[in-house]
Amino acid sequence: MPAYTAPLRDFAFVLNELIKVQEVVPTLPGYGDATEDVYASYLEAAAKFCESELAPINRSGDEAGCTFNPADHSVTTPVGFAAAYQQYCELGFPGLDCDPAYGGQGMPKTLAFPVMEMLTSSNVAWSMYPGLSHGAYSAIHAHGTAEQKDTYLPKLVSGEWTGTMCLTEPHCGTDLGLLKTKAEPNGDGSYAISGTKIFISAGEHDLADNIIHLVLARLPDAPKDVKGISLFIVPKFHADGSRNGVFCGSLEHKMGIKANATAVMNFDGAKGYLIGEPNKGLACMFTMMNAARLGCGMQGLGLGEASFQGALTYAKERLQMRAASGPACPDKAADPIIVHPDVRRMLLTQKAYTEAGRALTAFLALQLDIEEKHPDADHQKEAADLVALLTPVAKAFMTDNGYIATNMGMQVFGGHGFIREWGMEQLVRDCRISQIYEGTNGIQALDLIGRKVLLDQGQKLRKFSGQIVTFCKAQEGDERMREFVEPLMKLLKDTGELTMHIGMAAMKNRDEAAAAATDYLRVIGHVTYAWLWARMAKVAFEQGDGAEPFYQAKITTARFYFAKLLPEVHGLIASIKSGAVPLMSLDAEHFIFQ
Amino acid sequence: MPAYTAPLRDFAFVLNELIKVQEVVPTLPGYGDATEDVYASYLEAAAKFCESELAPINRSGDEAGCTFNPADHSVTTPVGFAAAYQQYCELGFPGLDCDPAYGGQGMPKTLAFPVMEMLTSSNVAWSMYPGLSHGAYSAIHAHGTAEQKDTYLPKLVSGEWTGTMCLTEPHCGTDLGLLKTKAEPNGDGSYAISGTKIFISAGEHDLADNIIHLVLARLPDAPKDVKGISLFIVPKFHADGSRNGVFCGSLEHKMGIKANATAVMNFDGAKGYLIGEPNKGLACMFTMMNAARLGCGMQGLGLGEASFQGALTYAKERLQMRAASGPACPDKAADPIIVHPDVRRMLLTQKAYTEAGRALTAFLALQLDIEEKHPDADHQKEAADLVALLTPVAKAFMTDNGYIATNMGMQVFGGHGFIREWGMEQLVRDCRISQIYEGTNGIQALDLIGRKVLLDQGQKLRKFSGQIVTFCKAQEGDERMREFVEPLMKLLKDTGELTMHIGMAAMKNRDEAAAAATDYLRVIGHVTYAWLWARMAKVAFEQGDGAEPFYQAKITTARFYFAKLLPEVHGLIASIKSGAVPLMSLDAEHFIFQ
Repeated sequence: MPAYTAPLRDFAFVLNELIKVQEVVPTLPGYGDATEDVYASYLEAAAKFCESELAPINRSGDEAGCTFNPADHSVTTPVGFAAAYQQYCELGFPGLDCDPAYGGQGMPKTLAFPVMEMLTSSNVAWSMYPGLSHGAYSAIHAHGTAEQKDTYLPKLVSGEWTGTMCLTEPHCGTDLGLLKTKAEPNGDGSYAISGTKIFISAGEHDLADNIIHLVLARLPDAPKDVKGISLFIVPKFHADGSRNGVFCGSLEHKMGIKANATAVMNFDGAKGYLIGEPNKGLACMFTMMNAARLGCGMQGLGLGEASFQGALTYAKERLQMRAASGPACPDKAADPIIVHPDVRRMLLTQKAYTEAGRALTAFLALQLDIEEKHPDADHQKEAADLVALLTPVAKAFMTDNGYIATNMGMQVFGGHGFIREWGMEQLVRDCRISQIYEGTNGIQALDLIGRKVLLDQGQKLRKFSGQIVTFCKAQEGDERMREFVEPLMKLLKDTGELTMHIGMAAMKNRDEAAAAATDYLRVIGHVTYAWLWARMAKVAFEQGDGAEPFYQAKITTARFYFAKLLPEVHGLIASIKSGAVPLMSLDAEHFIFQ
Repeated sequence: MPAYTAPLRDFAFVLNELIKVQEVVPTLPGYGDATEDVYASYLEAAAKFCESELAPINRSGDEAGCTFNPADHSVTTPVGFAAAYQQYCELGFPGLDCDPAYGGQGMPKTLAFPVMEMLTSSNVAWSMYPGLSHGAYSAIHAHGTAEQKDTYLPKLVSGEWTGTMCLTEPHCGTDLGLLKTKAEPNGDGSYAISGTKIFISAGEHDLADNIIHLVLARLPDAPKDVKGISLFIVPKFHADGSRNGVFCGSLEHKMGIKANATAVMNFDGAKGYLIGEPNKGLACMFTMMNAARLGCGMQGLGLGEASFQGALTYAKERLQMRAASGPACPDKAADPIIVHPDVRRMLLTQKAYTEAGRALTAFLALQLDIEEKHPDADHQKEAADLVALLTPVAKAFMTDNGYIATNMGMQVFGGHGFIREWGMEQLVRDCRISQIYEGTNGIQALDLIGRKVLLDQGQKLRKFSGQIVTFCKAQEGDERMREFVEPLMKLLKDTGELTMHIGMAAMKNRDEAAAAATDYLRVIGHVTYAWLWARMAKVAFEQGDGAEPFYQAKITTARFYFAKLLPEVHGLIASIKSGAVPLMSLDAEHFIFQ
């Protein structure tokens, strides 16, 4: 099991030097106390908790998994999970970025996101229990009545209760229009919820006294499609302590995140309370979904970081073969494998994707803070547009890169990477689901090209590109930055043309946008990372020649990214330009395999 | 668990129409009986065995794994494994391509390879038990004395005994020069072998009466590097039935191939017999390794095929959302997901990689048959050179593509892909090791660029390119083929320049070849697949307009490959041209993660 060391130095770099949180956040109403010192002390406390409490129970949790007891429908989490959760609550982390009116600490997302990254790095399965609660908190906070807020929020904020999102049914995942769960009025303002939900993360467990399910269901006579879905609060226990009719029917057996209980939840006339407007449940749920998508992207980041740490440590210790240029450690039987170019390729890929992902999440967290608190509506709108555009990119690009990174970390270990004891293959298995849930990465790609880019004729994308152009123009005269600015400007131009090309093609054939979607999301991801790496290099250059090696590593990694990872866009653009015909011309019945 | 249907139609296409086995193999000495009918009847028998015996115990085997009993060092394989092995032996498959002098059926590799593919598709963990035996058979057949052959080969050919390859030790995998296992003369011509070997596939089990270990060890006073390694035969049981001092110490807990026993083997003065010359053990072992590398590549192919079959079946049944161009199945609640371009992208990627991989293995099998049996030494040399050049490509490109394919198959299933019951995630886990063992794919890439291309100044590569050019020139005047021939010729030209570029750079800096290696192997892989897809399209075009849909699907898939997968080379070539500096310029101690 690789040890985990929280990347506090890189958090400080990203927050204070790259996106300069302190120039913005403490000026926002309600965040006056969020000083650099406050950030640092919270991050240190979270680091200590993750390193010493969560990381040590990560592999044991994977081996043990969760246990379902059919007799009483209870679920037991692995040894140490409940105790760690207790401590997490005592430290006040469940309410870190929650409303002080309900007991929260009112801290900004720019602080909450790095904490979330550390949780996912050290124990992603565990992190989902509080993660889902936060989603329930957000939905109730945004859409609940005053009474609902008073009833549920304080307990969710303190962590005494946890929450879930109940969307998926056996026959519908992506296509929520097909969902069948029913909500019948009880006559007292409450509803009787009946149906079966599957893949409910943290659906049942022994960490908390109560579980608040947020459930999508149909009112009688509701329209049959997505316009007929409403959202309900269904607590496991009622206010009077009596048990509600919602029970775990079984747990799924999964490839990874085994220590998180993925439950089949049976609602048998369970009492529920409508939240938000009737038939507007999907919009309410999206309050949770957008946050969940960013949280999911964070899993790719956090697991990539954990894998990088394990692989780097191993690559410095494992002796095998000699450096091509002559022995690096002639006193040893062989050289550490970090001398080999191909091992470095894998380590640098992990490092480049992880550090850019960290920068992206910090940038997005800052936009969320501005969107929520900025007194100027234009600033809020600007920030909200960037978040809307980049949320599918953060979800899909970060989880795909996390899967690449965790697989490379495993590969660095050679045969030992395949052995469970080393912990590297668990990171691969745990990461794999992040490409699937909260909307598969294919769905994210459709969201990006369709809703976020083509629907507003590229307005949001142009705003984002505008920021990049502004950055690039500001580098004129800085010769050190040319190696980054020139390819970035070129890529931006190519991407603009590409977007036009897809938009034109999509007007003639509706399959064209969908055919381009996955490749297009990766192109936009690379545009984003290239911009962030150029910005990180700029910060490093400004430290001057005598700066600590940390900054030189930023410049070197930026160069690696531009040299070795960014060229992927050439193939992606060519693939997109070949259009939809190569995908669509084979009849379904001729997709034979024998 | 997806059902498995052996791709007999595609085997027939590849063998009879694409590489035209019947024009060559029956003309080779000893293969006169290998008619089309003989191939068909063997393939049908193997298909039946794989479909009805091996596929049904694939998932149960993964769940159960192997059990080690420390009391007697025995290993129990999952339920059904021993019975299936018994049946496999009764059918005569262990000796399919073995020497009739020792009871083998003397069939060509062009028949044995498709059989191997079916074994890996239906149950890769099971397939490794006979697979390792075959390696031991080959090494003894090539390097053993007459007495050794008489002692061991008949039992390996009948399957009564199995075999292993014992190379890896805890501190050395890739770098066999570090190995420590000792072989001390007993004075009677035998040796006492002492040491610990790890990652020994099929090292201990309950399928056969005896296990013949082929073990690398050092003679006293042997040179300390790879020039001081010798190969020994170490049977579990001696000829008189007494137990030898080689025992399984434990089994590894792994990510996948759980039903194959990956053993730690302790040799405690075990009696062994030198095979081949003293200190020439590595060369002997490479007789097994080259075959093992092709077999390993076949695992990527076979698992990709299994995943494709599962995903295709699901994509035709699972209803979710509507086609962008309007409902495809208006009478159903939603359309089958095969209507969606992004799902088709995944299915076609699986199909394109799998069918090209099948064509490549058939092509290589034909070269092996020619290398072994052709009466003309020049023909033999030509074939041997192609095999040498393309073995690392087949191993690494096919397993990397197999991993891509199995992951896509899982993605098609959405959340259900992550659930063990469906069997799709097992294919991912089982495939993952193929990128690591038998020389990691990074090592394959070094073998290709270093030993196979640069060492002979590109001679073998030019021979291979020559074949491709000959094919392309032969298409002149066939307008239908232009869409394939033009990009293929262009790629061939680019690849020639790229190889020159790397060769020149490597003369100045020895890290340059290693820095390019992994990307370069993928480029050569794409050259190979582009050529094979062009050839397959040609065969299909020649059927004319009224041909069965099978042929149209070949043309469509070839177009998909050229449009959507081949463009990857643009990024790879750009990455290679950026050279070694971006990989080598960060000091090892500055690869920090905090």
